[in-house]
Amino acid sequence: MDDRDFMKLALAEAEAAARQGEVPVGALLVRNGEILCADRNRREGDRNATAHAELLCIRRGCELLGGWRLPGCTLYVTMEPCPMCAGAVINARVERVVFGAYDSRAGAFGSLINLSAYPFNHRPEIVGGVLEEECRRLLSDFFGRLRKRQGPNREDGSGEA
Amino acid sequence: MDDRDFMKLALAEAEAAARQGEVPVGALLVRNGEILCADRNRREGDRNATAHAELLCIRRGCELLGGWRLPGCTLYVTMEPCPMCAGAVINARVERVVFGAYDSRAGAFGSLINLSAYPFNHRPEIVGGVLEEECRRLLSDFFGRLRKRQGPNREDGSGEA
Repeated sequence: MDDRDFMKLALAEAEAAARQGEVPVGALLVRNGEILCADRNRREGDRNATAHAELLCIRRGCELLGGWRLPGCTLYVTMEPCPMCAGAVINARVERVVFGAYDSRAGAFGSLINLSAYPFNHRPEIVGGVLEEECRRLLSDFFGRLRKRQGPNREDGSGEA
Repeated sequence: MDDRDFMKLALAEAEAAARQGEVPVGALLVRNGEILCADRNRREGDRNATAHAELLCIRRGCELLGGWRLPGCTLYVTMEPCPMCAGAVINARVERVVFGAYDSRAGAFGSLINLSAYPFNHRPEIVGGVLEEECRRLLSDFFGRLRKRQGPNREDGSGEA
């Protein structure tokens, strides 16, 4: 399994999110080539601002490994993490982050801001743009359908995943 | 109850954290002058990198209010939030954040970085330095004791709360 293979699994999670009316973002936590856990954005269903795919994976990963550090772990996620999730990556010492679509509105690993460039206790390795086109299309299709349904004047949540 | 009164309650949470061997940070979520919930840093006890006082309060606040937005809410916290928690504040639309001690190592509302100055969908109002001296002393006493116990060569987790 390489980065693209793991990203395909994260994409399947994102597609499941879209079917549930959630902004389609999926994530996967992998350690030494083995999948630890997978999850998707659940903000609307859980009615919780912290229920992003990445944060849920990191929380579950800590439970599975029994500690607050996630050594040797790679987080795969279909969209560039927001500051909350990028901060969780740093706090949990996630070694490597591989993301799909860039997020110019809220991306915190290079687009709007780059938290991996600051002198925190940990600097994860970041790889962006893996299966970018597929990840981006899933998001733009979702928001396109949402805008069509809601009309032009409703807040559509774009870029808030 | 004014900001200092609420901060005293957050300080009591931080003191409870210190007694449990946690980096002493406490937080309180207040809505229209009413306390919604309070919590403290539980990273070591929960063995979880996401178990910061602020994130736990925001998660619980969403449960209590039944939605991912926390309108009209003020988050009181004894130390400046890290990027994860500052990001959660923005994601949950917390209206106002009042913190005690500044954190030059990882503070994300003005010290190392200022997430409230970026063009996210929401910009919280930030007030820093409330009961700063008491909040700072609690942290420096804790790390002083830790260093004494661990000797000079152990990672002491300073600034990681």
